[in-house]
Amino acid sequence: MDRRSMVKFAGLAGILAAGAAPAVHAQATVRWRLASSFPKSIDTLMGGAEYMAKQVKAMSGGKFEISVHPGGELMPPLGVLDGVQGGNVEMCHTAPYYFFGKNEAFTLGCAIPFGMGSRQMTAWMLEGNGGKLMSEFYAGYNIVNFPGGNSGTQMGGWYRKEIKTLADMKGLKMRIGGFAGKVLERMGAVPQQIPAGEIYQALEKGTIDAAEWIGPYDDLKLGLFKVAPNYYYPGWWEGGAELDFFVNKKAYDGLSAENKAILDTATRAAHVSIQAEYDAKNPGALKQLVAQKVKVAAFPKAVMDEAFKQSMAIYSELNASNPVWKKIYGDYLAFQKDQLLWDRFSQASFDGYMRGVKLP
Amino acid sequence: MDRRSMVKFAGLAGILAAGAAPAVHAQATVRWRLASSFPKSIDTLMGGAEYMAKQVKAMSGGKFEISVHPGGELMPPLGVLDGVQGGNVEMCHTAPYYFFGKNEAFTLGCAIPFGMGSRQMTAWMLEGNGGKLMSEFYAGYNIVNFPGGNSGTQMGGWYRKEIKTLADMKGLKMRIGGFAGKVLERMGAVPQQIPAGEIYQALEKGTIDAAEWIGPYDDLKLGLFKVAPNYYYPGWWEGGAELDFFVNKKAYDGLSAENKAILDTATRAAHVSIQAEYDAKNPGALKQLVAQKVKVAAFPKAVMDEAFKQSMAIYSELNASNPVWKKIYGDYLAFQKDQLLWDRFSQASFDGYMRGVKLP
Repeated sequence: MDRRSMVKFAGLAGILAAGAAPAVHAQATVRWRLASSFPKSIDTLMGGAEYMAKQVKAMSGGKFEISVHPGGELMPPLGVLDGVQGGNVEMCHTAPYYFFGKNEAFTLGCAIPFGMGSRQMTAWMLEGNGGKLMSEFYAGYNIVNFPGGNSGTQMGGWYRKEIKTLADMKGLKMRIGGFAGKVLERMGAVPQQIPAGEIYQALEKGTIDAAEWIGPYDDLKLGLFKVAPNYYYPGWWEGGAELDFFVNKKAYDGLSAENKAILDTATRAAHVSIQAEYDAKNPGALKQLVAQKVKVAAFPKAVMDEAFKQSMAIYSELNASNPVWKKIYGDYLAFQKDQLLWDRFSQASFDGYMRGVKLP
Repeated sequence: MDRRSMVKFAGLAGILAAGAAPAVHAQATVRWRLASSFPKSIDTLMGGAEYMAKQVKAMSGGKFEISVHPGGELMPPLGVLDGVQGGNVEMCHTAPYYFFGKNEAFTLGCAIPFGMGSRQMTAWMLEGNGGKLMSEFYAGYNIVNFPGGNSGTQMGGWYRKEIKTLADMKGLKMRIGGFAGKVLERMGAVPQQIPAGEIYQALEKGTIDAAEWIGPYDDLKLGLFKVAPNYYYPGWWEGGAELDFFVNKKAYDGLSAENKAILDTATRAAHVSIQAEYDAKNPGALKQLVAQKVKVAAFPKAVMDEAFKQSMAIYSELNASNPVWKKIYGDYLAFQKDQLLWDRFSQASFDGYMRGVKLP
């Protein structure tokens, strides 16, 4: 190559490099790992995370890929918060109330006994102050948070014997996840932490007297109705449990503006899809359970009332002892009251009428 | 430039062109127009469409842009279906039941009197057969559809005089949108079609006796409480009105795989955001209305029962006369019954208890 051509070539290459560099940079593939707290068998939640990852990949033309790992595959199911905080994985999918031992305020982004329902929680998180308040709190754990589904009101679990009075709760050994155990303790029950795979045997042997899991669709798969045929409702400790996607802050900050928007939008789409899937699948499963002679019954009012009273006492104590809780719960409670007021005149009024009519 | 340099330059340019062409192609900006059926003043719905467009632009790095136009700007608010079908605009945001005159089946993708609520509709559309059935139907109009929000249960409107008995509905001149007018007619009322901007004056002058709009947040802005202070609930004709984004099929087919995924995900995120915004904003507006001495009251049971009876009679007639209706409504009704069954044991049971307690 002669000198003049060299100059021209170098000049052109320089121009091209300047122009092409951002495009090449934008096309570098980002690969993340998501650690779920849930087993593969909870296909609604695992499916929701997989749907999110699928949309992220499709929207980015394959330039942003998130591999989804069930609970236990990369780390223990309840180790995912530490995993994201420490940057061992970029992302997790979990139920924030699992981490109430670190700070009770985690429950407010998920579910508290006698707390908000699914639509109410979503409204608080997306359009109320909930999103901002919880984000400030999670930032202390290096976490950027995105709502990632809701189960709707869960069932109150499986009982070997009928619960007829408040006294029947005394000494009841019950498998129950998270914060609700604290309320049950004050009612005289004995909460137990048992992994999903061991609940059936514990109930069969009588090591425990009762166990709550999720709702008909997930409960049916565990087969608990065979060993504890009394199925109570409602799950007053989970009027609408929100799941979340937690993202390591440094990993999030490293995303391009496009990928940030892609993650934000894909998680929000997954949020609504998961609730829709639970709503679509639970009724059929409930009918199957009833066909298996499961006895479905409401908790006695005295049990509900005592649980409510003890829950409010705990929240009052937390207001005094935990300033983070106090700040967030104050806003949560005001929003909840407004939602309950409006619901009376809208959805609850309409739904109440619909439950009383005979459709063709 | 000497000849050798020319050759080199041309050769390099050719190589570059060959290599760069796909990248340039992928980066070509797609520009769409969205015609809304709603005025700017309904900021929840217009805001939802704008949020969707903002996410589309951000996710695509500005390579897919959708401009959002309020009702009347590009075409009449109710002309948007024809606009999308004919390809005058690529996309619209509308309430499908506006088009029941073309086929009553449009109402099933939006709201029918005594139909499904917000979460139920979302479950049917995203995870039941609703999405598939409605898509097949809309395909006949060159339309690809995406859920685009829900209002939740609306209010039953503003009345100059109290409604105490079924007889008070006779001769009542009422501004009401869409299909519900057919039910009111059978109850002896006289439905009227009046644009939003003219409702206030018509009520003030007594040209009409009543008018329904949406819910507290939107109703407050129209100021109807000043001229018709009786505010009834629930809006039995809109237990949960779904909005939709309709996309011209040819325009949709012309999108890249990335942009298809971007549109699909952004509309789904907007779907949940709109309901959340209504839920967050309605309670405060209701409180403001009550402070203005609005009389909020439930429709008498006799009115609800007659409306229910007439609605079911209409659906029965449509089953006989409209095979498309019959096919879709059959699935809708079965899904609705399942949802009402499950609701009894879950959200409704929980919410019912919550309405009876005194929160701190």
